[in-house]
Amino acid sequence: LSLKLRPECIGCLLTVRLNEIARSSKSEDEALRKGLAFVERAVRLMKESIELTRLATKLYRCAIELCPEIVDYYRELKRSSVKEALSRLEGYKSRMKGLEGYERFELAVKIAIAGNMLDSGVAGHEPRWLDPADVARTGLVMDSSKELYELVCRGGRRILYLLDNAGEAVLDYVLAEELERLGNAVVVAVKSEPGFQNDITMDDVVTSGLLELFERSGIKVVETGTSASSIHLDEVSCDFKRELGEADLVIAKGMAHYEYIADEKLSKPVFFLLTPKCEVVSNAIGAPRGSFVVTKKDQKRQLEPPQ
Amino acid sequence: LSLKLRPECIGCLLTVRLNEIARSSKSEDEALRKGLAFVERAVRLMKESIELTRLATKLYRCAIELCPEIVDYYRELKRSSVKEALSRLEGYKSRMKGLEGYERFELAVKIAIAGNMLDSGVAGHEPRWLDPADVARTGLVMDSSKELYELVCRGGRRILYLLDNAGEAVLDYVLAEELERLGNAVVVAVKSEPGFQNDITMDDVVTSGLLELFERSGIKVVETGTSASSIHLDEVSCDFKRELGEADLVIAKGMAHYEYIADEKLSKPVFFLLTPKCEVVSNAIGAPRGSFVVTKKDQKRQLEPPQ
Repeated sequence: LSLKLRPECIGCLLTVRLNEIARSSKSEDEALRKGLAFVERAVRLMKESIELTRLATKLYRCAIELCPEIVDYYRELKRSSVKEALSRLEGYKSRMKGLEGYERFELAVKIAIAGNMLDSGVAGHEPRWLDPADVARTGLVMDSSKELYELVCRGGRRILYLLDNAGEAVLDYVLAEELERLGNAVVVAVKSEPGFQNDITMDDVVTSGLLELFERSGIKVVETGTSASSIHLDEVSCDFKRELGEADLVIAKGMAHYEYIADEKLSKPVFFLLTPKCEVVSNAIGAPRGSFVVTKKDQKRQLEPPQ
Repeated sequence: LSLKLRPECIGCLLTVRLNEIARSSKSEDEALRKGLAFVERAVRLMKESIELTRLATKLYRCAIELCPEIVDYYRELKRSSVKEALSRLEGYKSRMKGLEGYERFELAVKIAIAGNMLDSGVAGHEPRWLDPADVARTGLVMDSSKELYELVCRGGRRILYLLDNAGEAVLDYVLAEELERLGNAVVVAVKSEPGFQNDITMDDVVTSGLLELFERSGIKVVETGTSASSIHLDEVSCDFKRELGEADLVIAKGMAHYEYIADEKLSKPVFFLLTPKCEVVSNAIGAPRGSFVVTKKDQKRQLEPPQ
């Protein structure tokens, strides 16, 4: 399964970083100089043939080293995305009124996945908001949501919920709150500074007021201890590892967590919630771009007879 | 005016070539290896800060050196694009029935410009056919078409018409035939092998039957003598230079000719017919992407009082 660099990834990884550099530079000359310097270093990193989320992390770190203004550029982008998400929150939540049981849970899952469209790290994917009515109408693909529901519907579970993009986190709040309401203890994990592109960090959660929103619903917010694109186990903090160890199950949002965690042994159920936004991930998962995916890690392995 | 490499160009130039390499390679490993080797060389070429159409030419030559199958890939693409254009030709020509004078000429100009949408060399631009009715409805921007009409409507002019993309050449035939009908001698120029991306070459003109079509209307077809993206004067053949010398006026299709010729002294009127397909060219011309542009070279200079 492990996702390694594919030919289609080269242009995508370069283009996203080049756009950031162009947007964050003070002049065209600076953007050109830094852009070319970035491409030169990027080729060297790409030749090392490392796992894709580690490569993406290294490339982002290389870009912000050349052009530290990128961090401010994303801070502003994240701020306005969270603000817009908060203004849309009631529109999504009102759709859940009157629903109960699995039907209610399934809609919360779909609202959370709709937020995964707000990714600004894929060339050719324009981050966009889905209308609540469209979200309700969209069916789930590779649907492990019933299995997830069975695990959480009677409460008593400790759930580690890995967040992804900033605006998306507000829609994840809908699902996290629902998990709490069912009697589970939910811990959401955000990245540490300086963050990874538009992924939400602890700083974003605090300054936007989202921390209060989560805590009012009894949801704990923790940092991964790293700015890496996923929870790279050699980079995360001891505190985060303890949270991971204590969790009964993990919900992981977005492509990067899918790419990284699919190959790691976490010794507990992991449910990936995402929408594939590029052909490489779409092919790896076996679900079309833009579809709503709920898939359980090692699903196939569990179907094999015990040895 | 001279267009040099801009920050936005880096990702575009790399992505277009990387896509060709991926499509023309026999395996993913080969595509990855050649793609990375290409990016490495491309950065070195980009650092030389040469004029944009020369850089694009060098980058294309570098790509086909690494991956000669790209030439076959484009040969097939050009073949099917010319075939489709020929099947649509009557649909465009029938719109001209009953029209006379400038009105008829203007429509022929717009049909030729619509063909400029068939460019496969711009990242983020999907080559597409415009419906004849939509072409008729579209207005011209920076409209020098009346001045062009005044120069050719009484016949007797020798016109050098520089072609661009393969399928587009069939729609250029509509305008070339109209220029002949008005009593002018039209010479159309195509690129020499191995060509430049999907631009039409003498080989394409011969094998597709387009040569016969042009010649039946009294239109002469010549080669530029180079595979460069425009008529780089240090690369074109002596025969082509003679054609250029003998022409009373030049009609140049597409972005590359605009970018290169705008800075060269040709000592005769040049009319650029194109639709801008990227922000860099759109800003340089001052016309939106997708608009139909007819603009005369050095238009402003001619408005200055004589010294």
